[in-house]
Amino acid sequence: MQTEFESLAVKGVQALSPYQPGKPIDELAREFGLDPASIVKLASNENPLGPSPKALSAIEKALADLCRYPDGNGFDLKQALSDRYGIRPEQITLGNGSNDVLEVITRCFAAPGDEVVYSQYAFAVYPLVTQAIGAKGVSVPAREYGHDLQAMADAVTEGAKLVFVANPNNPTGTVHGAAAIESFLERIPERVLVVLDEAYCEYLQGGDDVDGLSLLGRYPNLIVTRTFSKAWGLAALRVGYSVSSPEIANILNRVRQPFNVDSIAMAAATAVLGDEDYLRRSCDVNAKGMAQLVAAFDDMKLAYIPSSGNFISVEVGEYASQINQSLLEQGVIVRPIGGYGLPRHLRVSIGLPEENERFIAALGTAILAATAEAANKAEV
Amino acid sequence: MQTEFESLAVKGVQALSPYQPGKPIDELAREFGLDPASIVKLASNENPLGPSPKALSAIEKALADLCRYPDGNGFDLKQALSDRYGIRPEQITLGNGSNDVLEVITRCFAAPGDEVVYSQYAFAVYPLVTQAIGAKGVSVPAREYGHDLQAMADAVTEGAKLVFVANPNNPTGTVHGAAAIESFLERIPERVLVVLDEAYCEYLQGGDDVDGLSLLGRYPNLIVTRTFSKAWGLAALRVGYSVSSPEIANILNRVRQPFNVDSIAMAAATAVLGDEDYLRRSCDVNAKGMAQLVAAFDDMKLAYIPSSGNFISVEVGEYASQINQSLLEQGVIVRPIGGYGLPRHLRVSIGLPEENERFIAALGTAILAATAEAANKAEV
Repeated sequence: MQTEFESLAVKGVQALSPYQPGKPIDELAREFGLDPASIVKLASNENPLGPSPKALSAIEKALADLCRYPDGNGFDLKQALSDRYGIRPEQITLGNGSNDVLEVITRCFAAPGDEVVYSQYAFAVYPLVTQAIGAKGVSVPAREYGHDLQAMADAVTEGAKLVFVANPNNPTGTVHGAAAIESFLERIPERVLVVLDEAYCEYLQGGDDVDGLSLLGRYPNLIVTRTFSKAWGLAALRVGYSVSSPEIANILNRVRQPFNVDSIAMAAATAVLGDEDYLRRSCDVNAKGMAQLVAAFDDMKLAYIPSSGNFISVEVGEYASQINQSLLEQGVIVRPIGGYGLPRHLRVSIGLPEENERFIAALGTAILAATAEAANKAEV
Repeated sequence: MQTEFESLAVKGVQALSPYQPGKPIDELAREFGLDPASIVKLASNENPLGPSPKALSAIEKALADLCRYPDGNGFDLKQALSDRYGIRPEQITLGNGSNDVLEVITRCFAAPGDEVVYSQYAFAVYPLVTQAIGAKGVSVPAREYGHDLQAMADAVTEGAKLVFVANPNNPTGTVHGAAAIESFLERIPERVLVVLDEAYCEYLQGGDDVDGLSLLGRYPNLIVTRTFSKAWGLAALRVGYSVSSPEIANILNRVRQPFNVDSIAMAAATAVLGDEDYLRRSCDVNAKGMAQLVAAFDDMKLAYIPSSGNFISVEVGEYASQINQSLLEQGVIVRPIGGYGLPRHLRVSIGLPEENERFIAALGTAILAATAEAANKAEV
């Protein structure tokens, strides 16, 4: 009899559906026979600016050492992060994107059966890494699409080992201010680790915004995660990190793979941290594009979730999947978020002005087509 | 009272000592105030040739898309691997180095308490990933430094879920021929997965050598892992993969991180697969360097473990750690392997002829110094 290997996998893995990334441009081009250059991808919250020149020239220098393993300790990158953020290198755990750090944290601190708390509509990786190790996910109903921090604190009971808070959250873009985050942290017992995922924090515009790093001194159970994939424009290279107490970082660093960030990626990340102009332009383009999309949605009488990230989720209604299909046919890739429990919304990343314009026009066409098709079907 | 976060970590992690990579050149330069350019690193089984020109030009092209996430499906790289090795894309699981695939396999198929079988002196990552998830490592005593395949098959009892076989093995360089591997596979029940780690297979010189890929059709419980970090010269970029049945690959692909191999790395790996000349030169330099080192060890009356990899472990005796220290002071980095249970050996990677010469001369000096120091101490 043939072995069913599925039945040999550990329990959490048997039922696991992998993360669904945004459709790559080349894949859409292959499927629809489109010219890749004509495709607009606003599906993965990528930086539309193109890479920082400082990152590019650092990569050129690093190419000579392609045959060498990376520096497993990430000396230069940790030093650059320390200098920029006033933290110590021993507080840092580097990851293959912040995704990697989120997974390592879960594997270090949650065993099968332990509870991991997160919000409804929160980043898909939290439930995935929880399930993969056989821990028990506790999804707390959202409040106006955002984290209900009171209810999340209430949900942290005896069996909880970890809480994930995305601030701003993906895919909703909702954010909590400093006071709300601090009140929340006050309510979490020190034996439960809180992961504050700040993947989109560089887009915050100041004011009431929370900076997780400034809270580390007061909350020893806090881990802040960040990434170079968004405002820093290095999604291709997979660099993220966490900042925590040195004690927690020491534990995480045991479990992360010794060379989880590659040499080219570390060189680029180290260099881009010194490119203040790039960061400023990233935020400017984002603010302008966000205003452009919001104005268009208002014009089109479409509801949206006000967002503090580099993306916005717009409510296109019951025909969302037909509308998405029409957008694809028009060479525009956005992200359907039915998998997040938001089947009436599409998430669109902020692009360059002309990309946003392409999307707005295509969205108009797609909505008309979907509505006409539905009316037709209703008649038949 | 302050929380001891160590006590909150899952059990396997609490006692975990992380993998100790070879000392990076920059680190040694910082420690001893040496010029990095003067340092010879023969510590991490890296390709001494420098990168393939085809890999470099593929990277240049890929740099334009630094802001984009990698293709999570690795379409191009899987296609290139399929074309080269006569396998199907759906048999492939890409990893951040083969290290990543080894870890993913373990996390998919071994739960806390399950047994994972490997050989004494086998690659350090097997016991590490086993311990991290709380599974039980079964280390089978080696035979003349190599895997005792009979004893390993005997050790696969009721509780076993996985067996790791490194062929050639690191750090001993021992290898088993096709007949031995097949007899072993015949003895392993189908419900137990066998991982045949062929990180160094490109260095094999034909003859009796086993090619794991050719066995996949007959042994559905077989997973072959390979890497671009050795003969293909891309250690900096972290690309490895496994080949298995599509059913097993489907399970592994659920658990690997969706962007575990970055865009630059995939572009370089795809290109280097077409650089036959580079592979041939890598193997030539290795064969000549191996002969050079073996001749020197014979001259110096030093025993060594005959190796089929791009490294060789030489027995320098009871003063191995002093000898290693002296090598470091002379700007030569090799790998002490006391952590592998081989405290009298040092593992040296095959370098360019002049690097090998530097090492041989430095080793002579180091042995004299260590012996003299020991004699001095004995007199006092």
